[in-house]
Amino acid sequence: MRLLTTGFVTVCAASILTQAALAAPKQEIDPKLPLSMESKACIACHEIYTPGIVHDWQSSLHARTAPGLALKKPEIERRISVATVPERYAAIVVGCFECHGQNPEAHKDNFKHNGFRINVIVSPNDCRTCHEKEVVQFSDSKKAHAIKNLMDNPVYHTLVDSVDGLKKVVDGKIIAEKSSYNTKHETCLGCHGTKVEVKGMKTIRVATGEMSVPDLTNWPNQGVGRENPDNSLGSCASCHPRHSFSIKVARKPYTCGQCHLEPDVPAYNVYKESKHGNLYESKEEEFDFKAVPWKAGKDFESPTCASCHNSLVVTPDNRVLAERTHDFGARLWVRLFGLPYTHPQPKSGNTTIIRNSDGLPLPTNFTGVPASGYLINGDEQAKRLAAMKNICSACHSTPWIDGHFKKLDATIKESDAMTLAATQLLVEAWDKKLEDKANPFDETIEKMWTKQWLFYGNSIRYASAMSGAPDYAAFKNGWWDLSETLTRMRDTIDFKAFMKGPGSAATKP
Amino acid sequence: MRLLTTGFVTVCAASILTQAALAAPKQEIDPKLPLSMESKACIACHEIYTPGIVHDWQSSLHARTAPGLALKKPEIERRISVATVPERYAAIVVGCFECHGQNPEAHKDNFKHNGFRINVIVSPNDCRTCHEKEVVQFSDSKKAHAIKNLMDNPVYHTLVDSVDGLKKVVDGKIIAEKSSYNTKHETCLGCHGTKVEVKGMKTIRVATGEMSVPDLTNWPNQGVGRENPDNSLGSCASCHPRHSFSIKVARKPYTCGQCHLEPDVPAYNVYKESKHGNLYESKEEEFDFKAVPWKAGKDFESPTCASCHNSLVVTPDNRVLAERTHDFGARLWVRLFGLPYTHPQPKSGNTTIIRNSDGLPLPTNFTGVPASGYLINGDEQAKRLAAMKNICSACHSTPWIDGHFKKLDATIKESDAMTLAATQLLVEAWDKKLEDKANPFDETIEKMWTKQWLFYGNSIRYASAMSGAPDYAAFKNGWWDLSETLTRMRDTIDFKAFMKGPGSAATKP
Amino acid sequence: MRLLTTGFVTVCAASILTQAALAAPKQEIDPKLPLSMESKACIACHEIYTPGIVHDWQSSLHARTAPGLALKKPEIERRISVATVPERYAAIVVGCFECHGQNPEAHKDNFKHNGFRINVIVSPNDCRTCHEKEVVQFSDSKKAHAIKNLMDNPVYHTLVDSVDGLKKVVDGKIIAEKSSYNTKHETCLGCHGTKVEVKGMKTIRVATGEMSVPDLTNWPNQGVGRENPDNSLGSCASCHPRHSFSIKVARKPYTCGQCHLEPDVPAYNVYKESKHGNLYESKEEEFDFKAVPWKAGKDFESPTCASCHNSLVVTPDNRVLAERTHDFGARLWVRLFGLPYTHPQPKSGNTTIIRNSDGLPLPTNFTGVPASGYLINGDEQAKRLAAMKNICSACHSTPWIDGHFKKLDATIKESDAMTLAATQLLVEAWDKKLEDKANPFDETIEKMWTKQWLFYGNSIRYASAMSGAPDYAAFKNGWWDLSETLTRMRDTIDFKAFMKGPGSAATKP
Repeated sequence: MRLLTTGFVTVCAASILTQAALAAPKQEIDPKLPLSMESKACIACHEIYTPGIVHDWQSSLHARTAPGLALKKPEIERRISVATVPERYAAIVVGCFECHGQNPEAHKDNFKHNGFRINVIVSPNDCRTCHEKEVVQFSDSKKAHAIKNLMDNPVYHTLVDSVDGLKKVVDGKIIAEKSSYNTKHETCLGCHGTKVEVKGMKTIRVATGEMSVPDLTNWPNQGVGRENPDNSLGSCASCHPRHSFSIKVARKPYTCGQCHLEPDVPAYNVYKESKHGNLYESKEEEFDFKAVPWKAGKDFESPTCASCHNSLVVTPDNRVLAERTHDFGARLWVRLFGLPYTHPQPKSGNTTIIRNSDGLPLPTNFTGVPASGYLINGDEQAKRLAAMKNICSACHSTPWIDGHFKKLDATIKESDAMTLAATQLLVEAWDKKLEDKANPFDETIEKMWTKQWLFYGNSIRYASAMSGAPDYAAFKNGWWDLSETLTRMRDTIDFKAFMKGPGSAATKP
Repeated sequence: MRLLTTGFVTVCAASILTQAALAAPKQEIDPKLPLSMESKACIACHEIYTPGIVHDWQSSLHARTAPGLALKKPEIERRISVATVPERYAAIVVGCFECHGQNPEAHKDNFKHNGFRINVIVSPNDCRTCHEKEVVQFSDSKKAHAIKNLMDNPVYHTLVDSVDGLKKVVDGKIIAEKSSYNTKHETCLGCHGTKVEVKGMKTIRVATGEMSVPDLTNWPNQGVGRENPDNSLGSCASCHPRHSFSIKVARKPYTCGQCHLEPDVPAYNVYKESKHGNLYESKEEEFDFKAVPWKAGKDFESPTCASCHNSLVVTPDNRVLAERTHDFGARLWVRLFGLPYTHPQPKSGNTTIIRNSDGLPLPTNFTGVPASGYLINGDEQAKRLAAMKNICSACHSTPWIDGHFKKLDATIKESDAMTLAATQLLVEAWDKKLEDKANPFDETIEKMWTKQWLFYGNSIRYASAMSGAPDYAAFKNGWWDLSETLTRMRDTIDFKAFMKGPGSAATKP
Repeated sequence: MRLLTTGFVTVCAASILTQAALAAPKQEIDPKLPLSMESKACIACHEIYTPGIVHDWQSSLHARTAPGLALKKPEIERRISVATVPERYAAIVVGCFECHGQNPEAHKDNFKHNGFRINVIVSPNDCRTCHEKEVVQFSDSKKAHAIKNLMDNPVYHTLVDSVDGLKKVVDGKIIAEKSSYNTKHETCLGCHGTKVEVKGMKTIRVATGEMSVPDLTNWPNQGVGRENPDNSLGSCASCHPRHSFSIKVARKPYTCGQCHLEPDVPAYNVYKESKHGNLYESKEEEFDFKAVPWKAGKDFESPTCASCHNSLVVTPDNRVLAERTHDFGARLWVRLFGLPYTHPQPKSGNTTIIRNSDGLPLPTNFTGVPASGYLINGDEQAKRLAAMKNICSACHSTPWIDGHFKKLDATIKESDAMTLAATQLLVEAWDKKLEDKANPFDETIEKMWTKQWLFYGNSIRYASAMSGAPDYAAFKNGWWDLSETLTRMRDTIDFKAFMKGPGSAATKP
């Protein structure tokens, strides 16, 4: 096989010039900016065998500028955040090898590929060479810790198993197994990220013969908190997918909508129904999704997720309304995502360290008291709210903005009160031994309770925050279900108590 | 503070020329059309403090033409419907003050702002200066009466409270409170509109210091039937949002889709799944959404909501297929929205006056008999159906059109029959005292009954009317649920009757 | 009436030249390519009476090229698949009469219309004159047999009636009628297609007077398996709608999304949430949806449904990755659509011939054993999987592709195991006589069982196949519901058994 691939490289190398000449749409690449010799070799073959990747890259800015040139732009216009780049990258475009050849010693997924040492996975630590600030911000965020925060928290892990675990019926009883890694990969870890490790090498058969490549676990995956073979956390491709590394794609709501959607975190769904979403959908083609910095009013008439949560947003005369951040919680003061109640944002991106008053790894206790020691304080909350309001101010007056957030505050309170009501019924069911609290997520009444805060409570809060989606909040996944589920919890308790016998019967209807 | 804001005005006024010169994208504004002195002052400061608003306006036709010029167009091409405009507006563009300075005496929300008398809210009565016909048509419609029709109808108000009211659990019982205005604002009144009143003045802190502004109730809101501080009804910004006043946005289905969507009025959802919706989504960028009049076949190949329900639609040679209307029910003969059964459209936009044969403010009684005295008669229905068919005729033959509406008629009948079946089960539950009819919306069987007509019956009718969405009507929110809910109502009655004791037991399974 | 229409033709004919001159956007029609005399006559009148149709056609390629010219293109670029076209069509554009005048002797819907013999319906057999390969491929597919496969299979027909049949409540009992043809037309047959027959002639009133036209049953309909009055099967307009016959529309996911959507076949829904869907939605306007052949990477950066399932897809240097097919199952090895379990694709598009081990017309039996004699074998499965992987290879490496399909295999197994668990509970309910197995689709527990495989099992498999939609598979219509429904089936069996009496009581909670 060694002979075969070596011969293959020779063939490809011999045809680099003609191949490149034939295949590359030259007008897209600045002819004065050279490609490294290594990347030329990559493209010569991959143009033939995976042309989609090559064309995707050719459409990217990586293929049309060089890090050294990028640094010559005014700072506010830069997409690059280091002060200097290594000399060898300064004057060439960012090609295949510039990314897949980074930090080979750190990559357990590095392998010899046609004469080059290649990493299968490009990790945030590799992107850091040019995009340092973004990687540093990201690394402290909840997103970077997305696997651990889910899998190393025994409460959440129990929820995952209760939802995703294979069930068998034995003697009429439902027996739940732990969820398989495969199913977690297809569900929770599809967004949170998988742990990608190198099991060893394996031989695969490709068009040109056999090839020895790293054998990766839980691959492919582009979850936002992916654990990479170089021990870094995250996947930039979650939002800047594949080889076009597009800021346009990252700014479009569909990208966030891959993970932030109904029924649990319906951010994308309520955005679409909001006035902001309507304007975006109606006029999308008039916006400039590539401009850096991003000018409110001029480049976009209505915000997308990125405008409010992480982009560098300025006024048309370049007054900064919000600095760019890749810590996506950095502009948030309250965590609308109830666990099971809303609470101030956690101090650390690693939320496994949190303990509530019952000693559980949850940010609130069963009656809604926040685990304050682990959450940001009022001053920090006020600072972040003010930062968010500053973005709104590009298009809205102060009373409008204040009125909006006052509504949100009231909705947060009411939705938490609805969670408390459901919790009281759940406790009644547990107290009457109708369901078993050992696992709070696996029986009928427990599942109704879970939906109250995880689906419906979240929905009305997200709808409120997004200044829209009133029908969603009323009928789709919000108040209607909150109210109906309470009556069904009451009925189910009554049925189960009746069956159990008069001693434990609940209020009869 | 007075000193402060006066000084502020002076500073801004001094910089008008340079600011305007720097910030306004001149090419978008016809240089021959002047801006009023007042609007110049507005823009000089707001360009700095709320640039999004200013740029939004600059993208509008208001910023690029003058009412006097608009009147010189052939009538069929006009977006303006008065015969003459006040002299002072004839030769200037429609700027900030031209709208926010209208009818100050009528506006309780008028306040002194940097030397000018400004209304916070621009109401339909203000738009009427140039768009009279549209406002007159709108003012008689159900949309203009959207708050009253919901809140002043005790039956509907009970439904609102049952859905949106905060629930508490006291001694194991669910205690429902009246819904808070805040929650209604975030749900029903988000679309129907809030009552905006002036509580007084309040001092706010803005970038330039303190400022005294009207303190408005239930603000912000752009619901279609909003009650404004000048006593007018409605918000044109519901569909022509904010400061671009775009006919393009109003004609796109996303706008209607802010409120007309699943599960209760899934017009937008079934449109998307229909052939019309598919063509729109696939070819949207080939349509001309700004053309007036709107030429079927030429400007659009497939209708959006506006084409059938309110736009001025003509053939490519300007034969009128449908006159423009802003009474959005004007082309409708049957009301598909069951209350709880379908019925002819109401005669008046104010539906609180309707009384059914039981004396209730509903357009049908419990068995489906319409309150005919309050509803349009057969002649009027036939006239409206013919008007709608005329629009279809731009692209469809007569037998095709007739076949379509014949199907709709049959579906209406079957869906109403399904509502009747559910009603019979509900009556059984009430007769057996399993649930309490005092409030028909707050218990389990009652909620199942409500979903039958409000969610599922509506869905199959909307799907039928939109000539599409067969999967939606079958499985999503239609026949599947209609059938399943009936079996569940039957089961729940049996369970509850069994618990109540043998005397009242229902048919045993 | 005869006089009237004859006179009408004369009037129209007299105005052909001027009408055509006025109305046709000349730049869209190659002036050197003539229109037949017949089609000129059609357009002269229909330009006035159904201008939308005429303009739609004018936007089509049919209006701008001639079959003879199309044949001069290199084969790989052709949209036409015959070797030769009839002489009379070679040098004219494909106008109204060229399609609506095809094979008049075969068409029971042919009628005399203003001096011409016109078919109301253009069928696949007519399109075959130029597009032979496509029609032949289609005719053997499951799609072409979509009506028969549903209506002539007694098991599926029972499901249809249970869902769509009108229910009445008589003496407290739910009495289900057979579903009406009208409702089937609006639901299942909206996609599967209706049987369109000629009942006779009828007189209709149109703008120019009365007219005698064929009276068609179950019309209009464009379902994919429509049975046409010329005895052919199918409607090309399902995907190439109306008169623009657009390849662009057919390649956009909205077209497939008319029928393949949640909750039963959520292909479109999970696509939208996938990385592929995100890229499509974010960059749609950069793709070339009209290019033939379709170059992966160059013409599209992310696949739509058509890319993977039926388009002719090539590399930028015209290496064929997949041949065009209009048998939409031809690239599929496994049928994800559980009936009730997944199984290898059927050998024949006519699935009514299948018999499982119990003699039922289902591809698997009640425990999941496939009816192998009627399904493709392992070799054929392997061949098809390899063909699909070949498409992926345009943009993905071999280990990535293998990893993806390995995940799918595991998900198929787990989802089938979940169906088996639900089936065991259903059997318990039947054995205890709690529900009646005579109709397995019409009672509460039975409906829960049906949702397990028809809604939730399908959802997680489609999500897995589409390499995305993890949240959908977790919470929307997937694992959450699979798990919750099992606990509810258990509870409902217990309630019903308890009511039935101690003799048959199930495991007490």
